[in-house]
Amino acid sequence: MTTLIKGGQVVSPSGAALADVLVDGERIAAVGAPGALGVLGAHETIDATGKYVLPGGIDAHTHMEMPFGGTHSVDTFETGTTAAAWGGTTTIIDFAVQAKGTSLQATLDKWHAKADGNCAIDYGFHMIVSDVNDSSLKEMRSCVDAGVGSFKMFMAYPGVFYSTDGEILLAMQQAREIGATIMMHAENGIAIDQLAAQAVAAGRVDPVQHGLTRPPELEAEATSRAITLAGVTGAPLYIVHLSAAQALAAVAEAREAGQNVFAETCPQYLYLSIEDLARPGFEGAKFVASPPLREKSHQADLWRGLRTNDLSVVSTDHCPFCFKDQKELGRDDFRAIPNGMPGVEHRMDLLHQGVVAGEISLGRWVETCSATPARMFGLYPRKGVIAAGSDADIVIYDPSASQTLSASTHHMNVDYSAYEGFSLTGKVHTVLSRGRVVVSPSGFSGATGHGQFLTRGLNQYLN
Amino acid sequence: MTTLIKGGQVVSPSGAALADVLVDGERIAAVGAPGALGVLGAHETIDATGKYVLPGGIDAHTHMEMPFGGTHSVDTFETGTTAAAWGGTTTIIDFAVQAKGTSLQATLDKWHAKADGNCAIDYGFHMIVSDVNDSSLKEMRSCVDAGVGSFKMFMAYPGVFYSTDGEILLAMQQAREIGATIMMHAENGIAIDQLAAQAVAAGRVDPVQHGLTRPPELEAEATSRAITLAGVTGAPLYIVHLSAAQALAAVAEAREAGQNVFAETCPQYLYLSIEDLARPGFEGAKFVASPPLREKSHQADLWRGLRTNDLSVVSTDHCPFCFKDQKELGRDDFRAIPNGMPGVEHRMDLLHQGVVAGEISLGRWVETCSATPARMFGLYPRKGVIAAGSDADIVIYDPSASQTLSASTHHMNVDYSAYEGFSLTGKVHTVLSRGRVVVSPSGFSGATGHGQFLTRGLNQYLN
Amino acid sequence: MTTLIKGGQVVSPSGAALADVLVDGERIAAVGAPGALGVLGAHETIDATGKYVLPGGIDAHTHMEMPFGGTHSVDTFETGTTAAAWGGTTTIIDFAVQAKGTSLQATLDKWHAKADGNCAIDYGFHMIVSDVNDSSLKEMRSCVDAGVGSFKMFMAYPGVFYSTDGEILLAMQQAREIGATIMMHAENGIAIDQLAAQAVAAGRVDPVQHGLTRPPELEAEATSRAITLAGVTGAPLYIVHLSAAQALAAVAEAREAGQNVFAETCPQYLYLSIEDLARPGFEGAKFVASPPLREKSHQADLWRGLRTNDLSVVSTDHCPFCFKDQKELGRDDFRAIPNGMPGVEHRMDLLHQGVVAGEISLGRWVETCSATPARMFGLYPRKGVIAAGSDADIVIYDPSASQTLSASTHHMNVDYSAYEGFSLTGKVHTVLSRGRVVVSPSGFSGATGHGQFLTRGLNQYLN
Amino acid sequence: MTTLIKGGQVVSPSGAALADVLVDGERIAAVGAPGALGVLGAHETIDATGKYVLPGGIDAHTHMEMPFGGTHSVDTFETGTTAAAWGGTTTIIDFAVQAKGTSLQATLDKWHAKADGNCAIDYGFHMIVSDVNDSSLKEMRSCVDAGVGSFKMFMAYPGVFYSTDGEILLAMQQAREIGATIMMHAENGIAIDQLAAQAVAAGRVDPVQHGLTRPPELEAEATSRAITLAGVTGAPLYIVHLSAAQALAAVAEAREAGQNVFAETCPQYLYLSIEDLARPGFEGAKFVASPPLREKSHQADLWRGLRTNDLSVVSTDHCPFCFKDQKELGRDDFRAIPNGMPGVEHRMDLLHQGVVAGEISLGRWVETCSATPARMFGLYPRKGVIAAGSDADIVIYDPSASQTLSASTHHMNVDYSAYEGFSLTGKVHTVLSRGRVVVSPSGFSGATGHGQFLTRGLNQYLN
Repeated sequence: MTTLIKGGQVVSPSGAALADVLVDGERIAAVGAPGALGVLGAHETIDATGKYVLPGGIDAHTHMEMPFGGTHSVDTFETGTTAAAWGGTTTIIDFAVQAKGTSLQATLDKWHAKADGNCAIDYGFHMIVSDVNDSSLKEMRSCVDAGVGSFKMFMAYPGVFYSTDGEILLAMQQAREIGATIMMHAENGIAIDQLAAQAVAAGRVDPVQHGLTRPPELEAEATSRAITLAGVTGAPLYIVHLSAAQALAAVAEAREAGQNVFAETCPQYLYLSIEDLARPGFEGAKFVASPPLREKSHQADLWRGLRTNDLSVVSTDHCPFCFKDQKELGRDDFRAIPNGMPGVEHRMDLLHQGVVAGEISLGRWVETCSATPARMFGLYPRKGVIAAGSDADIVIYDPSASQTLSASTHHMNVDYSAYEGFSLTGKVHTVLSRGRVVVSPSGFSGATGHGQFLTRGLNQYLN
Repeated sequence: MTTLIKGGQVVSPSGAALADVLVDGERIAAVGAPGALGVLGAHETIDATGKYVLPGGIDAHTHMEMPFGGTHSVDTFETGTTAAAWGGTTTIIDFAVQAKGTSLQATLDKWHAKADGNCAIDYGFHMIVSDVNDSSLKEMRSCVDAGVGSFKMFMAYPGVFYSTDGEILLAMQQAREIGATIMMHAENGIAIDQLAAQAVAAGRVDPVQHGLTRPPELEAEATSRAITLAGVTGAPLYIVHLSAAQALAAVAEAREAGQNVFAETCPQYLYLSIEDLARPGFEGAKFVASPPLREKSHQADLWRGLRTNDLSVVSTDHCPFCFKDQKELGRDDFRAIPNGMPGVEHRMDLLHQGVVAGEISLGRWVETCSATPARMFGLYPRKGVIAAGSDADIVIYDPSASQTLSASTHHMNVDYSAYEGFSLTGKVHTVLSRGRVVVSPSGFSGATGHGQFLTRGLNQYLN
Repeated sequence: MTTLIKGGQVVSPSGAALADVLVDGERIAAVGAPGALGVLGAHETIDATGKYVLPGGIDAHTHMEMPFGGTHSVDTFETGTTAAAWGGTTTIIDFAVQAKGTSLQATLDKWHAKADGNCAIDYGFHMIVSDVNDSSLKEMRSCVDAGVGSFKMFMAYPGVFYSTDGEILLAMQQAREIGATIMMHAENGIAIDQLAAQAVAAGRVDPVQHGLTRPPELEAEATSRAITLAGVTGAPLYIVHLSAAQALAAVAEAREAGQNVFAETCPQYLYLSIEDLARPGFEGAKFVASPPLREKSHQADLWRGLRTNDLSVVSTDHCPFCFKDQKELGRDDFRAIPNGMPGVEHRMDLLHQGVVAGEISLGRWVETCSATPARMFGLYPRKGVIAAGSDADIVIYDPSASQTLSASTHHMNVDYSAYEGFSLTGKVHTVLSRGRVVVSPSGFSGATGHGQFLTRGLNQYLN
Repeated sequence: MTTLIKGGQVVSPSGAALADVLVDGERIAAVGAPGALGVLGAHETIDATGKYVLPGGIDAHTHMEMPFGGTHSVDTFETGTTAAAWGGTTTIIDFAVQAKGTSLQATLDKWHAKADGNCAIDYGFHMIVSDVNDSSLKEMRSCVDAGVGSFKMFMAYPGVFYSTDGEILLAMQQAREIGATIMMHAENGIAIDQLAAQAVAAGRVDPVQHGLTRPPELEAEATSRAITLAGVTGAPLYIVHLSAAQALAAVAEAREAGQNVFAETCPQYLYLSIEDLARPGFEGAKFVASPPLREKSHQADLWRGLRTNDLSVVSTDHCPFCFKDQKELGRDDFRAIPNGMPGVEHRMDLLHQGVVAGEISLGRWVETCSATPARMFGLYPRKGVIAAGSDADIVIYDPSASQTLSASTHHMNVDYSAYEGFSLTGKVHTVLSRGRVVVSPSGFSGATGHGQFLTRGLNQYLN
């Protein structure tokens, strides 16, 4: 079956241009000058006049059903990917989490069991390496062969995910060997845990302490340290959820020096701040994630980083916990608040708002949210571009529609919205996933199980 | 008439992908998955199997028939654009040169008279502003309206092209106002001229003195000064022919800070060095251009700059003078050697060699030589991309062919090659200019006068 | 005749220590542990118990009787040096000003004629080079021989003091050759004059425009340029009256790289700001000097620079013009306001206030105001230190006295105080100049003509 | 008893000046202009004509009788301090080493027991904190009261001296509270140990591997991390034995920002290199110390750092192990080579050689080797200066004598010299320790037990 999307402005990193897009089955068959493809006689036509035609969003950082501190993030692969689709994201890359003492293969098997058959859109996995040993180092290679070519490590959360600098060094050496990318949660958790313990000991237990005990300098320090270790080993490095101006400076310096260092930020760091963490009562718990929300002054730096490409990707770090029963676990001690915020549904809209506000260009919106994650994580050109031969993951976006974000209307399985009441310009109109219309003005028409696992290649940005 | 280019790898900044390209008249009608467009029945077919299909090269810095020190650069618009086409460049942007005491409009008229009807490929103009006054400042706006939205100024050559910092400030204020980009020849010519005079006074008159009296610090200084003036005024700034690592560092710092600062380098700075200027006899004169060829150590920095995008564009600064009679004017005083080198024909090949050597990626080759100059100088997406609706300026490039550069085989109207004897991998196979095959294995099939003047828009990279 | 100063704390750059000081004639004969010198039986004794005993202040930047814009700064060498003595300054280094078309020797002769026999304290000269040519370049060497080893140049004031980059280069080459230091007024006057003209043309003529048209970036730019030229030539460079954080950063970078670059700031930049320039009415004219007073935020950076020694010296740039008749020349055009502020009398007190406020240490006060200028300008150890063999230029300072600054009580020959009403802790008690008590609680006991010309040596900080 | 040292050039950080020094008992009674003190009739006179009169050297980093890997450094306090005196060092600050599970007080008692009554010159202690816990943190305050106001920590040697970032943070918070300085061994030992283990596993066991497995980047990383932790806590930080240009850059940046960060280097990093570690056979073992000797290119940076004061102090890290039996422990595994080199005897001579070579000034020699360590570690003005009231720790140094270093002539209790065969200009002539001549041309005239423990104050450089 063929579908012609006509009259829209096809958006790529270099801007927008009027073009028609012919979808044949699951793929894009051709992109034509306006009218040029009409002669081919598509079975169906979608009128995109006045709208943007985007490559579907790729959210490279989600945590569905993730175990954390005795509970789980509340979106399943089913609910989470459905919410993603509603928001114009047609691919997620989630994290398989190695538990200490288990193998990477067993971890991967477990995550496949969770996700397979349950996703509304296509998905891939990164691997969180929590247990560095000879065996897991060897398994990194088979992960790459299995389409999982990116490995996340933590410089925080000792006893859970934390790796020592020695373990990081070993994993980086292996990453260098096999061409994989190390993704780093860069916070000096060892020092932070002392500050947090001191706060609690002094009776400072409310959510804002989560932010005050994780100063930006300790994110910058860990970022610099990860960059040094990557330099010593030659490994590609990708800093996840960068939040602090000082960390950005470290990334920028490494990039200017030509090192294979990359970074992402998340919408919450662009729009929210430590003032939200400090909301009265226990409201701030809704905003507890790590790194923490920062002083507002960091936001301008992060937007600048997106413009200069020192921040290459926008992901969500979607990791939702309900306020009731989950966030509430930390009422008496902020350290017990599950770390994470919901967001997979609103990334495309929130970043489009950056276009509206003049922070980034239209092309840069698509680049940071779709094209670059595709290239960074080995999905390009299958994903991330409106081009002949690519998967027909297509978002028709109405730039002049308006919407108000709210827990009462969102599709994520969580009882609050971090952006409750935000009024935005722009809204998803229609979404195709591998050629199938999954969201349209008449609602969700996708299906659980439509989404397929993506065997990813390696980072395409390496020098 | 329609032509189908099939079986090739279409290259864009994000890499290569197999696709077929349908040309209809002067434009690209569609890009299709392999085989998808066959049903449309093109009149002609070009088999690009095993070859790259590139957007035609754009050389944003050429000087055809340019008056300099009582002589002229020896390529006419006819010979120069024909040579460009041979080398896979389908657009040049040349410089109209305001003489002191004349208006910008008269200058533009004069350059149109030189070029119109004489070009084998499409062309645009930048304007060199040599005489800053109320009238010429006002005329900058009408230049923009006439499709000339970039203005070059000189911090060197006092008495000829030189503008004072005060004049630069005024022009930049106006550029900011009208959205135009200031292009800067950034060398501290005032200090340099003292060093040069001292060298001659001391009897040091040979060509290598051209390099020794123009130290890289004085390029870096002028670059920094131009950046400061651009910062004070808010004007977009484009540093032409950046040659020195120290100047690159200044550009990188400004870019990281989010300023609208851009830079180009040229193949001669990537492949040649002051050792060439120091060749025995008067041979070095062939390599006299400003800024001068640098110590070899700068080359690695420049390649790195191309990778990090601190250098966004590769142009040639093509400004050929024959060795005989022209370069020879400076036998007794290096200051009298006409400044400039030939190169318009070999940019695409020399930069492809960077791909072969692993210095840059395939996508980056196309980006620096075609896509970015198109966006930087307001030609995109008409030029710089293989996309539906774009001009059919297409190069079919054979990456496995080999060639040796030589004055005996090149098509530029100059009696020497700066790259005599260079053996390269890769060679242009076929070139289309606005849908017309102008170069093919059977030779040049273009025509003088086929090339049209391009009314350019503004820089598309501005924050 | 011998005098024993006993019981005081002798202050040096490394701090304070109790010691007795024996003066014999014009020199210090010995410094002894408390009581150790009593056996020598001095003719007179001064009790300094509870007070600091400092080396007399050295103000390396004053302009007595300086011609400027058709008028003169109003302190003569007599009134100015007397006021200096009152404030604990026992040496000034004033500027001889070459007029275009005159020789350095004639200039020096002229300034000797002004000063000789008229000074209350010792004095030296720097030479302002306004006319760079073969003859004046040669004369620089004889100036050094005559004890004038520092040459000031201007990157501002075209047509008056301004030198081109080429002229600066030539003077720096000569300075390098003869070991002299180039002092630089670093502001891009060429660009500034355009901004100032635009302001006036737009009817913005009030004193604050003096500040607004001289943005800190243009001080930083000129500072960087001077540093580059000094680097190319190898000349020692001393930036006078540094006022802007951005210029400080340029100096700091050069110093960290080991270049012979030094800088001074002045009390007005530490205590006053552009808000003073913006005082209502024409009051702001009192604060017109170049570089201009900056936003308050720069003050913290300057204090930090004093601590880090990126700012090595505090001078006053004392150049007083009366508000009435002189400053008033610019009522209709801020450009006509004579540039300069009074200050020679209060430098020691104002910087002691920095000690009181915790900005600098006691030792650093003495270092920046006395020891370092002595070493920087070739007067050490004759001046700048309380040590055996040194000139007995000694200030006994009462750190617990208090005073309020006012034109009604100051001794400078000018009708206003820039610090009117400032309440300070600390006050000069007694001042000796070459062994003679010139200021004491009973008043001024010095004499015009006591001060001698100082034949200075070269900068003692050169690497 | 009084002694007059006459005719010499008294050297201070600001240079040299002819002066006579009167010693009365253990202290300096007076410093007089030449001849001025003769009238006082000293009991003895030392003729220092043609020689320098320096404040005695202060070596702020020695390890006498230090336990390390089952053996001890071979100089006892007796032999080590005697050797120091021979070389013009009149004060050492050695390290008391807390063993895990013991208290700081017990550690201090133990070290007093080792040193008291056994030293030829005065001495103080720093405290190495190996076991951070509530009790040892509290004891830091009593150490300060006991004259031990500086605490060393290690980012290397896990299981022995290593502290985690959390422990460092706690100790720094306490240091900030009590005004103490944290001294840091800054190498990322966790990562280094992996590299070292890999080398051994691969059969690379020779001494040069010690250097190759401790890359300069990992020193720079740890230095930056220590600076960040110091910034977060507000603690003063002193980087010991800085060896790498990259680490120096980190220190310089922090200092320029006004942070209380200081650093020392050692003669071995200025004169020796990894080429010595790579000497054939097992010779390289003589040069095994941590951080390791670096590539020669670092030496120029370190000398520059000494000039710019980014390196403020030169210490020796004297920690001698005999080649026979001790260094030989690592014949089969470089990791078993005791870390440390002898040097306490030759620091003054080796740095004077830097004066001879033009690397540093005469004043800077005395500043880095005596005055600054005295101020940094709270001994000034009792030590570190030739001034009335100061201890009569005086070195009369003959700048024109020559000597050749050799194990056959040195006085350290170790069987090799790291500088065997080095020919130097300049040599100690006479040494006074608290007024007593301990070294003179007729030999050693000091006495074990003459040296007293110094109760030190706090760092005098803190902003």
